[in-house]
Amino acid sequence: MSVTGSLIGVGVGPGDPELMTLKAARLIAGADIIAHFAKAGNDSHARRIVAAHIRPDAIELPLLYPVTTESHKDGADYRTRIAAFYEESAARLAVHLDAGRDVVVLSEGDPLFYGSYMHVHVRLAPRYRTEIVPGVTGMAGCWSSAATPIAQGDDVLSILPGTLAEDQLTRRIAEADACVIMKVGRNLPKIRRALAAAGRLDRALYVERGTMADGSMMRLCDRADDRAPYFSIILVPGWETRS
Amino acid sequence: MSVTGSLIGVGVGPGDPELMTLKAARLIAGADIIAHFAKAGNDSHARRIVAAHIRPDAIELPLLYPVTTESHKDGADYRTRIAAFYEESAARLAVHLDAGRDVVVLSEGDPLFYGSYMHVHVRLAPRYRTEIVPGVTGMAGCWSSAATPIAQGDDVLSILPGTLAEDQLTRRIAEADACVIMKVGRNLPKIRRALAAAGRLDRALYVERGTMADGSMMRLCDRADDRAPYFSIILVPGWETRS
Repeated sequence: MSVTGSLIGVGVGPGDPELMTLKAARLIAGADIIAHFAKAGNDSHARRIVAAHIRPDAIELPLLYPVTTESHKDGADYRTRIAAFYEESAARLAVHLDAGRDVVVLSEGDPLFYGSYMHVHVRLAPRYRTEIVPGVTGMAGCWSSAATPIAQGDDVLSILPGTLAEDQLTRRIAEADACVIMKVGRNLPKIRRALAAAGRLDRALYVERGTMADGSMMRLCDRADDRAPYFSIILVPGWETRS
Repeated sequence: MSVTGSLIGVGVGPGDPELMTLKAARLIAGADIIAHFAKAGNDSHARRIVAAHIRPDAIELPLLYPVTTESHKDGADYRTRIAAFYEESAARLAVHLDAGRDVVVLSEGDPLFYGSYMHVHVRLAPRYRTEIVPGVTGMAGCWSSAATPIAQGDDVLSILPGTLAEDQLTRRIAEADACVIMKVGRNLPKIRRALAAAGRLDRALYVERGTMADGSMMRLCDRADDRAPYFSIILVPGWETRS
């Protein structure tokens, strides 16, 4: 009659190691098993953020995404491979949970806000105890670095993926008081046109690696270049000095 | 030639003291001057969250909102009084900043996400150095307590105030993949009708005091009562197990 372990999804915040929570630091320092997602061939960003807190004798489980490119993400082959990857990842964690060991899964930002953790959570939560530790999101890191009040009072705030069709983007930007546009990358020329059509280009801020030491931000209309990394984001603050 | 102090807006997270960041804990423990917003006659929630970290010799500046009721919030008189309150609060902080003392201003959740801090920030940032420490938002605390993946992949997530008109609420709920509805309170019957009209009532979760020890959550359709505190929220998760 063994007791199974707990699955613990831990948000580690937007990048600055000091922006993890006290609870995240405590659970990571106490963890026997630490899992983290990364692209094959790359270090896990989440692991790098918390590296100083991991015990030397902890067992680490890197969960390495199948190699893909952004342009293949819509294909059926990609979806099949990624589903198989999450199944296999969940099975690897289950081995430790069945042996009675707690497993901490690291997530950049917040585990349930556009994070990978939820894919193993939904597969394991029916069978094991789970706990989720929320984290500071990447977007909050960005608007804090930019010192930009994002939303206030009765503002409607929309979180939009830059992958939306141009007419959809335009309409949704125009209808919201404030926006965060994620997954910028090669969508930047389209996003720029949508912001202009919605009358918001002059308010839009472009933020790259918001909470990193080498991060940068600028008004989008001051940026001539339309090349951007996939994880850059655009902020359209909704709130102006109203009082 | 004196050097002025820095204004530091610190997010203290959603309620559980362990969900503040390492940086928040460090800055609060080192602060000579700590300001916090509260309703007159009430303790500051933010102060209660961080109480264990405040030095006994720190000077505290409670910033007490003028007494109001929810129903007066749209009046011109309210707006005039609240603007005067923010002006006076900024002036009180400026006295210390001018004397070369750093001032930490506590914010529940994140300082720039529907927070009071931004009202003093915009008044003081032109004259003083500022720093903002992002925090875990109340909504992230709620979806983590509910173990509810809120958004994934290309989901559109809308943050909506429950104060919107019913037809507006209905349309915006129907058009988003995922929603967070804030400021529930006496708007709950209207929100319930809007969710039903948008075909999302069966997915909606009601969360009250999400990260407090006495918090509760339930499917909204299982809740017969339409009384709710102002700071309860409703989550409509966008993501289902797709793979």
